[in-house]
Amino acid sequence: MNNVYIIGTGMTKISEHWEKSLRQLLVEAALKAVDNALISLKDIEGIFVGNMSSGYLQGQEHLGSLLATWLGIPGVAACKVEAACASGGVAFHQAVLSVASGLYDCVLAIGVEKMSDVVTNDVTSALIMADDQEYVAGIGATFVGLNALVYRAYMERYNVKQEDIALFPVHCHKYAQYNPYARFRNTISVEDVLNSPLIADPIRLLDSSPTGDGSAAAVLCSENFLRKIGRRDELVKVLASSVATDTFSLNDRDDLTTLYASKIALKKALRMANIDINQINLMEVHDAFSILGVIHLEDLGFAEKGKGVNLIKEGQIEYDGRIPTNISGGLKARGHPIGATGIYQIVEVTRQLLGKADAKQVPDPTIGLAQNVGGVGGTISINILGKVR
Amino acid sequence: MNNVYIIGTGMTKISEHWEKSLRQLLVEAALKAVDNALISLKDIEGIFVGNMSSGYLQGQEHLGSLLATWLGIPGVAACKVEAACASGGVAFHQAVLSVASGLYDCVLAIGVEKMSDVVTNDVTSALIMADDQEYVAGIGATFVGLNALVYRAYMERYNVKQEDIALFPVHCHKYAQYNPYARFRNTISVEDVLNSPLIADPIRLLDSSPTGDGSAAAVLCSENFLRKIGRRDELVKVLASSVATDTFSLNDRDDLTTLYASKIALKKALRMANIDINQINLMEVHDAFSILGVIHLEDLGFAEKGKGVNLIKEGQIEYDGRIPTNISGGLKARGHPIGATGIYQIVEVTRQLLGKADAKQVPDPTIGLAQNVGGVGGTISINILGKVR
Repeated sequence: MNNVYIIGTGMTKISEHWEKSLRQLLVEAALKAVDNALISLKDIEGIFVGNMSSGYLQGQEHLGSLLATWLGIPGVAACKVEAACASGGVAFHQAVLSVASGLYDCVLAIGVEKMSDVVTNDVTSALIMADDQEYVAGIGATFVGLNALVYRAYMERYNVKQEDIALFPVHCHKYAQYNPYARFRNTISVEDVLNSPLIADPIRLLDSSPTGDGSAAAVLCSENFLRKIGRRDELVKVLASSVATDTFSLNDRDDLTTLYASKIALKKALRMANIDINQINLMEVHDAFSILGVIHLEDLGFAEKGKGVNLIKEGQIEYDGRIPTNISGGLKARGHPIGATGIYQIVEVTRQLLGKADAKQVPDPTIGLAQNVGGVGGTISINILGKVR
Repeated sequence: MNNVYIIGTGMTKISEHWEKSLRQLLVEAALKAVDNALISLKDIEGIFVGNMSSGYLQGQEHLGSLLATWLGIPGVAACKVEAACASGGVAFHQAVLSVASGLYDCVLAIGVEKMSDVVTNDVTSALIMADDQEYVAGIGATFVGLNALVYRAYMERYNVKQEDIALFPVHCHKYAQYNPYARFRNTISVEDVLNSPLIADPIRLLDSSPTGDGSAAAVLCSENFLRKIGRRDELVKVLASSVATDTFSLNDRDDLTTLYASKIALKKALRMANIDINQINLMEVHDAFSILGVIHLEDLGFAEKGKGVNLIKEGQIEYDGRIPTNISGGLKARGHPIGATGIYQIVEVTRQLLGKADAKQVPDPTIGLAQNVGGVGGTISINILGKVR
């Protein structure tokens, strides 16, 4: 494959943007990324929009063409890419493929979701469309309910307590306070988590990532394009980009406490990047619920099964620890505008590598990983980025 | 880019499949394509699903992971690609990029739409999501209504009569009678079209492509993969694959009677294939309505503006004419299961090139073109395929 670089990033704050429409969020993030890349809109040849539910929630499909027009560049190639909550990471993967193929020199990967100001349909119904409508959703399961099964299975199998699992959201909030783009910038305690309202036993409100409105974007380009624009400063290169699936629903899995797609995608990505997992200096993982944050630490190879919480206790996921994790605030505190989340992660890792973190800066990272999960692990994308000169 | 080949195709009949679910249609088409490719399911590394409205109509998103599981190959990469009615052609483009990049050796491009057996939401509302919800759909425009504006503008500008434009659907039905996969296999006359019920003046029922349930699939692979499986027979190669957008809505266009995205996508595709338009031996165009069929003949360079109907009258789009067009029956008679249509076109062109047409066989074609349109030309994909030994 041809080399692929990230030369610009942009994002909106994640919030309930009652005053901004879906297209306004898209345009804001896109323009910021193009400005940040120091290029012109006319350089963009393709647009890949990660989004899950704009059809159901806003009555709007065809977001690729819509964005091309509202950026004033109709003519470019464009499409929407959907893989439930992994839509952003997978849209980024498609953008990588487009440049890697040699057919595109400069493209925009952008994610968006608008979850406030929804009138006709409800967000809970939209989210469960990530799982099987006929065999799971149709019998009344909700998305948080499915994750509650994972949480309970994990606690029972590994004898891990809720007060330990609650350390993950506490960690995320601790760092989100520094992130101006984050939905929640308050800090919380383990007691706050344990005393928050029960949503789906044992998951509580503060175990759950919040919905939100937001859009994040990245400009990707080829080596040719870099030469053309004469960029010679520090850049971020895509070292690997992979996507893997697992059984669509939990009921087909041997083990509820491991997301196999993480392991498959990670293996592919490490081989592609030709690195060892220990060379990763920071990561953003998909902590839609506390338990997932802990499970990811294990499935991505940083802790044995059942021991993920030890990593948190030992300070290893702090900004200056062994593997700084979710220093942006993660899904829990930065927020989780479904189809945009994967690109928010890419933006965070990119800026950390450039030494330009919006929140707390990790000291001198050179390689970072972003992991984005669709459904309860039905699709997982892993992107590995590295700093190059 | 690396070379990309099509080694297998499969499809379901287009119909009101009250007895088959969305996933059954997907699995049927996928298995047929894999069988036709003489490979094993385990060879598939990635799945690209073209679909527009499964979220709104079936309450089901995340079709990539769903299909991977129901094919028994969870682990592979997968996603859904959406660009309104061009979802199929654009999903094929993404599949092409994946192999062209060198990152994938064998992938499945598949389109699906299920439009019967829809309870909670209606198809008319789903279709208009291809256009602007805030500025067009929200004020009551329907998709057929927008195409009626195009039809009227065309008639007035070029002084072309309805009985001439009606020749396009008559042509499509004439060939669909031979196609066992077609939704409507009856022949119709110009009088039938002119006397059919008025839908949105001047568009009548028989000017309109029917909705339908269906799925079509193609297996794409690399040169490496061909060597690995030892295929040495006649094959179809992807000579070019392009996507272009136009202004999202008609109200921003200088001219309602030209789809600029067709011209842009065509120009890119011809350059990529390094051929002249006169080297195309057959094509499938997106005749969602009669008037679009006629406009495509012009925008794709086979007739001057306003003269498209002459091509039909002169027999030039017949199976043995200068540019055989929609010999499958086109959207009008084969049927138009939205997100699947682009892949049905690819399957038709592929089989024609191999001399294995299901309907009437075009005599010895070597290069064919498939044009798939999203919205009223907001996105257009063009794929050019060629026979190679």
